Amino acid sequence: MILSTTGIKRWNDWGTEGSDYRMELSDDLRDLLTRLVGPGRALPEATLQQIVARVPPSRLPEHPLIERDAETRVRHARGQSLPDWLAMHSGELGVFPDGVARPASREQVVELLRFAADTNITVIPYGGGTSVAGHINPLADNRPVLTVSLTKMNKLLALDKLSQIATFGAGTAGPAIEAQLQAEGYTLGHYPQSWELSTLGGWVAARSSGQQSLRYGRIEQMFAGGNMETLAGQLEIPPIPASSAGPDLREMVLGSEGRLGIITEVKVRVTKIPEQESFHVCFFPSWQQGLDAVRELAQERVQLSMLRLSNALETESLLNMSGSEHLSALNHLLESQGLGDGKVMMTWGLTGSLRQCEFAGELTRQCNSRYGGVAAPDALGDNWAHGRFRAPYLREPLGRLGYLADTMETAINWDQVTDSMERIETAIRNALVDESEQVHAYTHLSHVYGQGCSIYTTYLFRCADDYPKTFDYWQKLKHAGASAIVACGGTISHQHGVGYDHRNYLPAEKGEIGIAALRSLCSFFDPDERLNPGKLLPDGK
Amino acid sequence: MILSTTGIKRWNDWGTEGSDYRMELSDDLRDLLTRLVGPGRALPEATLQQIVARVPPSRLPEHPLIERDAETRVRHARGQSLPDWLAMHSGELGVFPDGVARPASREQVVELLRFAADTNITVIPYGGGTSVAGHINPLADNRPVLTVSLTKMNKLLALDKLSQIATFGAGTAGPAIEAQLQAEGYTLGHYPQSWELSTLGGWVAARSSGQQSLRYGRIEQMFAGGNMETLAGQLEIPPIPASSAGPDLREMVLGSEGRLGIITEVKVRVTKIPEQESFHVCFFPSWQQGLDAVRELAQERVQLSMLRLSNALETESLLNMSGSEHLSALNHLLESQGLGDGKVMMTWGLTGSLRQCEFAGELTRQCNSRYGGVAAPDALGDNWAHGRFRAPYLREPLGRLGYLADTMETAINWDQVTDSMERIETAIRNALVDESEQVHAYTHLSHVYGQGCSIYTTYLFRCADDYPKTFDYWQKLKHAGASAIVACGGTISHQHGVGYDHRNYLPAEKGEIGIAALRSLCSFFDPDERLNPGKLLPDGK
Repeated sequence: MILSTTGIKRWNDWGTEGSDYRMELSDDLRDLLTRLVGPGRALPEATLQQIVARVPPSRLPEHPLIERDAETRVRHARGQSLPDWLAMHSGELGVFPDGVARPASREQVVELLRFAADTNITVIPYGGGTSVAGHINPLADNRPVLTVSLTKMNKLLALDKLSQIATFGAGTAGPAIEAQLQAEGYTLGHYPQSWELSTLGGWVAARSSGQQSLRYGRIEQMFAGGNMETLAGQLEIPPIPASSAGPDLREMVLGSEGRLGIITEVKVRVTKIPEQESFHVCFFPSWQQGLDAVRELAQERVQLSMLRLSNALETESLLNMSGSEHLSALNHLLESQGLGDGKVMMTWGLTGSLRQCEFAGELTRQCNSRYGGVAAPDALGDNWAHGRFRAPYLREPLGRLGYLADTMETAINWDQVTDSMERIETAIRNALVDESEQVHAYTHLSHVYGQGCSIYTTYLFRCADDYPKTFDYWQKLKHAGASAIVACGGTISHQHGVGYDHRNYLPAEKGEIGIAALRSLCSFFDPDERLNPGKLLPDGK
Repeated sequence: MILSTTGIKRWNDWGTEGSDYRMELSDDLRDLLTRLVGPGRALPEATLQQIVARVPPSRLPEHPLIERDAETRVRHARGQSLPDWLAMHSGELGVFPDGVARPASREQVVELLRFAADTNITVIPYGGGTSVAGHINPLADNRPVLTVSLTKMNKLLALDKLSQIATFGAGTAGPAIEAQLQAEGYTLGHYPQSWELSTLGGWVAARSSGQQSLRYGRIEQMFAGGNMETLAGQLEIPPIPASSAGPDLREMVLGSEGRLGIITEVKVRVTKIPEQESFHVCFFPSWQQGLDAVRELAQERVQLSMLRLSNALETESLLNMSGSEHLSALNHLLESQGLGDGKVMMTWGLTGSLRQCEFAGELTRQCNSRYGGVAAPDALGDNWAHGRFRAPYLREPLGRLGYLADTMETAINWDQVTDSMERIETAIRNALVDESEQVHAYTHLSHVYGQGCSIYTTYLFRCADDYPKTFDYWQKLKHAGASAIVACGGTISHQHGVGYDHRNYLPAEKGEIGIAALRSLCSFFDPDERLNPGKLLPDGK
């Protein structure tokens, strides 16, 4: 596990400037990409200096907590969506925040909100800046835009070991959370892929789900209470284990995406560091067998910490991309057991006491066997654990070669999983047919529930000849995938939130009355639409 | 397990008219009650005919779906709180609904809501009529009051076995739910003490928790979606396994207590009927040892279906009240192991596959041993299962002798449990000191979480010389207990909802801004306060 990252976030790619980790692509992988979607078309890359030089003057009045220099504004203008990546690399960022504040206390947050109300400023709450749905991007606004970064509120403030409740500043990022908790013998266990940079407040605001949600729950299950400063006053939610006393205010803060207030402190349910943890890989002869196995494990409540299933194309793609020298030995092993082209890969995790891991491991292996599963060497599970936060680093070397990768994800009931997966993949694969471009798309199921699971589709395509056309490609892909999700009845996002990119797909899930109810909730807390306007709710009034 | 009850609900006591189950109190128990709180003072009991004769004329206009006869109105005037019991037995019911409708379809619910809006009628949604907090009681209102009972919407409408989702009419009561599901090999597993009469829609509206919530979850975890008819239109929530797309509308419907709309259909997460189920009892030498054991079992995620801990006084009271001929043998056994007066009783349940039950049973027994636990004979666990829904029947024979019993409950973090329990018990015990009345109060912890648990205090006291004075006793007891809960920082209700009786204690939990947000939500759905006014939210605007 990577427990710390150092230095400030890189301005136009994943990772921190102090980190020495960079992903490289092998020659074999370049050849593979060429075969899959054609030769790459690299586009010119803007420099930070070029962009900084183009930043317009700030419209914000002076305030001791607000930084208005151009570079700070550039560094807080975009998140980590593919459109964000294209904007940062092309240099065409469009709108910048007029300034950035980094409050160090609740009181400073209150002061900034009061200043915003008094001087008619729009406010964007900002955690790790890792949104992949446009949550923190400023939109064109007649009012000056202030981004409020919680980065300085990054401490463990209290730990109740008996009740297993930890209180953190909302701007605490994953590694700082685990470092501070693990020093006390505890863990939160929330590991989204963005974990190295994303923050607790952001996880709550966007309803994040971590890789080990099967054990630790989604952020909804961890979020016990805390504090949100709103324009209507302070919302302080006490950490009560469970309550029947009316609608749950926590569930309004969860997913509020900066529209209701600024989350300043978060109380989370933590647990003791588990005695044991290990990850394992198993292959199945067919999709249906793998699917039946993961569904049974979920519905039978086998105490795993993680369970995912790659479809045949993802299995093949990941094995090829791993470039492992042992790949042919593995394929030989699997073929000798009758597992050929249609094979699928399950990755599963055990976390808990020694005895719980032993018991759950036994139940899992027996279940897998019943569905024709063949266990892979332990090294594959270790590989997954080693690389679990590395996928976001892939965008940079791909981009250098003129390739782009993005994902679409949803969750749906078991009876719809296979059909939905196929429809989403097909929609994405065909989205650039008019452009005569190939799209390589594959899928895994990454979070399982008794009722259904998430569907996570990755797609690879080439850049067009210029950035505007490339963005157009992305729009077509996004719209095709999102429309397929909505048509299947899935959620527009299982783990990435709504933000800007998904907002117009939200009514399919919430319904007309549901959207109106959410809009009225926003209006109660923020009648002037001062907080993160244009996000979460669909266009128009 | 009791799987069916027959006939209509008794008009002034728990149970159905067709049921032959009645609880009797032994002579020993009468003596015990006299020793604990003094000789009983039975009060005269009004008859149904007397009350029916006093019902004022209905103010409702005629409508083919509305019954306006006096007896129907009496039978829907009150729930199952102690004030309700006093009102029904004294005959002083105060306010009656002006009529009762029993729609058989969504369309009829819509028609009734439209009729209510058009003719300025107040509407009270009604499930099983089992509220212990005044949820369904009509309050004095210038508008005619229509109670809408969902009792005819009591069918399993759909069962998706792959996704384990069942769709029920919201008026389906516990036994009808299980009978229809178990015929298909499935179970919901939601067993509140009111299970024989309470309904799925009521559970959702009041955020119910069942005895086996440790396995099956609270109703919040079961409620996957469904339909609520509101004055603003239909809110249809699709059953998605998990979503990050904004605030969760389900969590607004949960706990809405009839203020937002009428829940007509509920989709719930079900599971296969488990292979095995058993209940067990263990005694510990002291409260602290028992508490440490239940906390450890909860925090270590041992897969139990139920876990509760009676404090020393409840343990002693339950053993004495059981009147078991084997009691002295049991006490002898426990004393031989060093368990005397301060001993406490844990009751725990195993539900699942044979192997899961075996494994969890082993972990539990080992944990219990570490804390000095002594397992009781299996008969005690069987006794618990046999009598699990019988406590509500106790009020009738107690009342006949001039005694009353009620409960207060909350949930709080582990670090506050013992102190809170003692403060709540003490407040209740001392509440009638001015009246020179003894109150016998004891407690168990009935729902455990990693973070904390529920605290459930039962109290026994004598009737006063008349009903008004007896109600005054109850008010003092309720206020003392509720004030202690609020002072400790617990929820005003872990499993019974807010209704009328708890509404003025809600601001302590939700805060000023939280209450205002909930009020704005009610205003969005129901600007005229037509639906169940005066419930959930505190007095005043």
